[in-house]
Amino acid sequence: MPHPQDGPVASQSRPADDLLYGIDAYWRATNYLSVGQIYLLDNPLMAQPLRPEHIKPRLLGHWGTTPGINFCLAHLNRVIKQRDLDLMYVIGPGHGGPAALANAWLEGSYREAYPDVGRDEAGMRTLFRQFSFPGGVPSHVAPEVPGSIHEGGELGYSLAHAFGAAFDNPDLVVACVIGDGEAETGPLAASWHSNKFCDPVGDGAVIPILHLNGYKIANPTILARIAGSELDGLLRGYGWSPHYVVGDDPAVMHQTMAQTLDTVLDEIGQIQHAARVEGDRRRPYWPMIVLGTPKGWTGPTRVDGLQVEGTWRAHQVPLAHVRDDPKHLKMLEKWLLSYRPDELFEPSGEPVAVVREAAPVGDRRMGSNPHANGGRLRRALVMPDWRRYTTELPRPGAASTEPTRALGRLLRDVIRGNQQDFRLFGPDETASNRLDAVYEATDKVWQAEILAGDEHLAGRGRVMEVLSEHLCQGWLEGYLLTGRHGLFSCYEAFVHIVDSMFNQHAKWLKVSRELAWRRPVSSLNYLLTSHVWRQDHNGFSHQDPGFIDHVVNKKSDVIRVYLPPDANSLLCVADHVLRSTDYVNVVVAGKNETYDWLDADAAALHCARGVGIWDWAGTETDDSEPDVVLGCAGDAPTLEILAAAAILREHVPELVVRVVNVVDLMRLQSESLHPHGMSDREYDAIFTPDRPVIFAYHGYPWLIHRLTYRRSGHDNLHVRGYLEEGTTTTPFDMLVRNDMDRFQLVIDVIDRVPGLGQRTARVRQSMQDTRERHRRWVREHGEDLPEVRNWVWPDALVHSAAPGQP
Amino acid sequence: MPHPQDGPVASQSRPADDLLYGIDAYWRATNYLSVGQIYLLDNPLMAQPLRPEHIKPRLLGHWGTTPGINFCLAHLNRVIKQRDLDLMYVIGPGHGGPAALANAWLEGSYREAYPDVGRDEAGMRTLFRQFSFPGGVPSHVAPEVPGSIHEGGELGYSLAHAFGAAFDNPDLVVACVIGDGEAETGPLAASWHSNKFCDPVGDGAVIPILHLNGYKIANPTILARIAGSELDGLLRGYGWSPHYVVGDDPAVMHQTMAQTLDTVLDEIGQIQHAARVEGDRRRPYWPMIVLGTPKGWTGPTRVDGLQVEGTWRAHQVPLAHVRDDPKHLKMLEKWLLSYRPDELFEPSGEPVAVVREAAPVGDRRMGSNPHANGGRLRRALVMPDWRRYTTELPRPGAASTEPTRALGRLLRDVIRGNQQDFRLFGPDETASNRLDAVYEATDKVWQAEILAGDEHLAGRGRVMEVLSEHLCQGWLEGYLLTGRHGLFSCYEAFVHIVDSMFNQHAKWLKVSRELAWRRPVSSLNYLLTSHVWRQDHNGFSHQDPGFIDHVVNKKSDVIRVYLPPDANSLLCVADHVLRSTDYVNVVVAGKNETYDWLDADAAALHCARGVGIWDWAGTETDDSEPDVVLGCAGDAPTLEILAAAAILREHVPELVVRVVNVVDLMRLQSESLHPHGMSDREYDAIFTPDRPVIFAYHGYPWLIHRLTYRRSGHDNLHVRGYLEEGTTTTPFDMLVRNDMDRFQLVIDVIDRVPGLGQRTARVRQSMQDTRERHRRWVREHGEDLPEVRNWVWPDALVHSAAPGQP
Repeated sequence: MPHPQDGPVASQSRPADDLLYGIDAYWRATNYLSVGQIYLLDNPLMAQPLRPEHIKPRLLGHWGTTPGINFCLAHLNRVIKQRDLDLMYVIGPGHGGPAALANAWLEGSYREAYPDVGRDEAGMRTLFRQFSFPGGVPSHVAPEVPGSIHEGGELGYSLAHAFGAAFDNPDLVVACVIGDGEAETGPLAASWHSNKFCDPVGDGAVIPILHLNGYKIANPTILARIAGSELDGLLRGYGWSPHYVVGDDPAVMHQTMAQTLDTVLDEIGQIQHAARVEGDRRRPYWPMIVLGTPKGWTGPTRVDGLQVEGTWRAHQVPLAHVRDDPKHLKMLEKWLLSYRPDELFEPSGEPVAVVREAAPVGDRRMGSNPHANGGRLRRALVMPDWRRYTTELPRPGAASTEPTRALGRLLRDVIRGNQQDFRLFGPDETASNRLDAVYEATDKVWQAEILAGDEHLAGRGRVMEVLSEHLCQGWLEGYLLTGRHGLFSCYEAFVHIVDSMFNQHAKWLKVSRELAWRRPVSSLNYLLTSHVWRQDHNGFSHQDPGFIDHVVNKKSDVIRVYLPPDANSLLCVADHVLRSTDYVNVVVAGKNETYDWLDADAAALHCARGVGIWDWAGTETDDSEPDVVLGCAGDAPTLEILAAAAILREHVPELVVRVVNVVDLMRLQSESLHPHGMSDREYDAIFTPDRPVIFAYHGYPWLIHRLTYRRSGHDNLHVRGYLEEGTTTTPFDMLVRNDMDRFQLVIDVIDRVPGLGQRTARVRQSMQDTRERHRRWVREHGEDLPEVRNWVWPDALVHSAAPGQP
Repeated sequence: MPHPQDGPVASQSRPADDLLYGIDAYWRATNYLSVGQIYLLDNPLMAQPLRPEHIKPRLLGHWGTTPGINFCLAHLNRVIKQRDLDLMYVIGPGHGGPAALANAWLEGSYREAYPDVGRDEAGMRTLFRQFSFPGGVPSHVAPEVPGSIHEGGELGYSLAHAFGAAFDNPDLVVACVIGDGEAETGPLAASWHSNKFCDPVGDGAVIPILHLNGYKIANPTILARIAGSELDGLLRGYGWSPHYVVGDDPAVMHQTMAQTLDTVLDEIGQIQHAARVEGDRRRPYWPMIVLGTPKGWTGPTRVDGLQVEGTWRAHQVPLAHVRDDPKHLKMLEKWLLSYRPDELFEPSGEPVAVVREAAPVGDRRMGSNPHANGGRLRRALVMPDWRRYTTELPRPGAASTEPTRALGRLLRDVIRGNQQDFRLFGPDETASNRLDAVYEATDKVWQAEILAGDEHLAGRGRVMEVLSEHLCQGWLEGYLLTGRHGLFSCYEAFVHIVDSMFNQHAKWLKVSRELAWRRPVSSLNYLLTSHVWRQDHNGFSHQDPGFIDHVVNKKSDVIRVYLPPDANSLLCVADHVLRSTDYVNVVVAGKNETYDWLDADAAALHCARGVGIWDWAGTETDDSEPDVVLGCAGDAPTLEILAAAAILREHVPELVVRVVNVVDLMRLQSESLHPHGMSDREYDAIFTPDRPVIFAYHGYPWLIHRLTYRRSGHDNLHVRGYLEEGTTTTPFDMLVRNDMDRFQLVIDVIDRVPGLGQRTARVRQSMQDTRERHRRWVREHGEDLPEVRNWVWPDALVHSAAPGQP
């Protein structure tokens, strides 16, 4: 079993020559199919001399990385067959689309997902034609490709996805091709350390294949241009045991790759045996492969006098003018024929036996591996009854709870009930976010050194903590897409670090939902806490509620946003989102102790409705119409709106106030724009078509306008929220700085309700004075005004006697 | 001169004992001042026994990382003095705020920036009180701290900022403290490779100080829990020559750190001498320091029976109950007195001579280093006349240009004129984005190996390319904040990768602008190209115009968004943004050949106005009112709107159409919300208060509503834009898929202009038919409908004879 201190392990076997012929034939076939996809509209088998009309009008695709990926796939097929491996791939170079498609078509997976694309000449023609073609399939290893869980259009996440797939799949091997361009990105650079979080007992193995083809779009790559000793030191420093397969002579390379793959798999077997059977708890040096091949390998060497193979010029389409330039057309013909298609395909277009037999069968085919269509394997979570964790509540405001702490207890029992397929991810913040009840049930995964005094660290566990939002997100995505469940808890401001990863996942889900053969996977659940209103310790850099704005730009089919106002409603929302599939759920909830407003029944009803009138907080009677509606979404705004309602009730008792709380933000949008959207009738029934609405919102106020601008009462809607004013200060001062405090809200009501101005001038002045007094007090004493600090939910406010009735 | 193959270099000197006493005294003084900031409201010199009322009501701050940073600062002061170094710091652990503040106060920089905080007892009291106090200063190394260019609240960017500061400052040394927590982030993991982009001749030196204090908030750190040999291999693999300073005995540690810093600076001197004098072009192994000290060093060892020093428990406030628990109060007193304040401060509060003299003077003080207040050093760019690069245009649409290619020529000459203080940053996309004219004037920086056949790579140059948006952004931020100029060109979709970095920079600018002593720095300029409408090669993963939505959430004082409709207006906008200061400018422009609409004069006028009626495109006369306004923002939408106008002119000639183009997006917002915002009168004059407005927008359509929802004509505003529908397809198909094509826009006009429906039913039907025909055609032929492909700007459209008149 290899360890940092050991030298390289000698290879165990040398594959026979006929086996290598089969591998080479398979490789040539995938290369042929790849070039065909990029270029050919017709004449797929090259039965006739190539003519301009056989060529696509727009040549879109990326050759450069493709032959190297094909090389990997051909060799992986060999070991899958030989060892009956449960092996899936992650292909980092998104531009390797032709390779993944070629393999899936050749092994027969493709026609099972797409029955109209058979494994014959007609199917080959369709395969070629549809590639990068309007109405066809995109040029990347996209959701449309059977066998992929990774798009790769945006670089950086392949290795994190691979580890996510391997977690809790002890019998799975994930081969992860990493481009040397991608390796320059930050997320990938951090991902190498994932080996400190991979348990050789309970998790599967990841084989990184660092594909050094030397060039990006227009530049060499860093890792290809440092000394070999530096690269080796770097990879060993990251904790890996690298094996090198470097060259350009296919015959030699086949030998080396085959031997190396055997060595690597033997090492993995030894590591797993040592850990699983012998109880060796040392962190292993997992093997990996550095594959050095020319960019555009086997393609045109020189074009128009310039070197192409082995340079960045091979990145996209090496021959760009095939349709117009007979010389280019001839070169393409020569290139295609260099793979000897007549040796590879029957006249019917079907692959010959030696090619067919180079691929595994059934679910062992990489295009059919069930892990890569995770919904096939997904089992529903065993959920405890969320009501068991709720706070009892005789009436609204009669108790207080730290919402995320209550959630932690629910998550603890989710973990207890789902030890194999649920994990909690967070960037060193699980305890800070007050979810630490989970440590009663599990530990944080930590394969690096553990010292006396460490707490809750173990080689195996359900909590994944690393100071990298990218890794948390990438691992979770890989985990979900292979059929499991999880939650990512994050400081609200810093979830923007993964904005772009979220984009790509939302796009993946959007497309996957349109593919009948892709089965639903568990939703990607964000818990955003330590939020903008309670960054007392950290201040301005930690204050940003804009992730919601970012999220709602994506397809409404996929996006859900929840702002539970208290602990019980958070529990109810959590129960819902953890059971759901194919969404991205954003749940924003505070960790600081706040009043409970809804008992379990009320929370269930309120969350089911998503929005509701809180009769007990308003002053409506059966025969009164509201003068004003106070709306709120989010825990801090809800408290301020309720406090404002209380002040109004005391000081302007004749005013009829309606309080509306929104827990499901997308309810605000029109039903034509979001599946959760309210009809205009519903909206008007709740917000009224014409009364002033003062709305306190958790985030940037204009988002509420963006969601409601077509509602009839919109001109009378006035939203308060975060105005990008903040620093290290008290929670109440944050509200005042952003004009969302209760006193300002009362002023807003007075200013907006017609006719109220005159008779409430004194109240208005007193509100202004109080704000001013607060400003002075907080700067003097470093604490909030006593009347805010000591504010207790006034009994008098509860209009309805029914406890917790929404 | 050290190279990969060399062993460690022996230390050159051993500082004298009295020098070490001075360093230790300075360190104790900064530690004392740090603890004071976290805890004390009063009694700053501990002249009286500590009482609860001396303690702050809210204890907010982070002790853990602070003594280690203080240790670095004390030692850096010594070498600055001894060698008369031009040295600035970047402190990655944002929670090191107390350290940076203590040093600035002690060396006298602080009172120069804040004359009300003197270097005496009263000033010390203010220093303590204001820290993490409402109305005071935040707990991080924020813009308020003299000497900092780096906030650190969000982790990951310190080393990139340090390199950005060092570029083109050959005499500068940047000491960069990197927390071992931060080192787990992706951006930091990638940043180590910045040494492949640092020229020992023309750039300064960066000394990374990896501060291994072993713990994050609640966990150990990866780099502290791998074998020493792995860490060493990793750092050497990254191309560094690490030196270790590890221990906890201050006396020994002072000796080791002093010797090591001397060694490191000697090595830097040797590297620079070899490169600058001897012409050695080999890439050097720059030295770095691994500083291993206990977390919370010199703080309370054990509290309430639990180990604190040397564990994660020292992260924030080691003694949490000082105000209530007399035992804790006593421990705090003992802790503060352990630094022997009476040896460090005069009774007046002034530091004693030995402490004062341990710091440099004048601009050599780290808190006063002019590079850290870059506006002090900034010189205006030498700008060529942008009109020299414009396309001549007899009338709108009579020529066509690739806009970014024209910009490339302007940037080429900006580079020629500003060889010392302008750089162009991009993730391997400068040529793809068609800015490659810059290579006529400069090269891409590449200190790694250069092979025959490489193009435009050199050890020195103005173009920075690495496949990491994080590095591009981080380098540029560091470059700008130290007084230089730059532009970041990026694929539009992938700029989301740096959403969070943008947030932090925008926050930095917002606060900096409020500080009189911070001088304006050059704006952060984004060129977003290869945009959503022209991702023909790449498809859905490369299509996201949402960065604008993200940007406009930040303070309007800081944010500018430009959507130039053609090449000439892009040149004019570029000229403007490159001259500006203290903004983030987002410029969105296509790289694909498009019609020119405005000649230079027209572009100048249009860009100055930011929004304008294009008379030549509409059909208004002096005595007609428009029936409909066609608005557009962005190059693709502009073409569609103009084509729609042409169709309407032909098929509905009686319709009076006004065409409005928006180049400065923030003009749409109210003047009360953005400095560029139009008054309602202006808005109504352009968009009319009551006519239907059909608006085609580059990005997500709801952004236009969010900017205009209070405008009088808003109910009649109908926006088309990107609806998150995309794939690898033709440019026109992208428009059709998102309902923003010219035919749909004509339908929109017909549907929205009252009374038009009946008499234009046939036109409407023909538009629908054409869209349907397109859908079929593109799937059949892989190309756009011929009538779209061959569409030539119709002469008949130009209503006004004046060429290019906006």
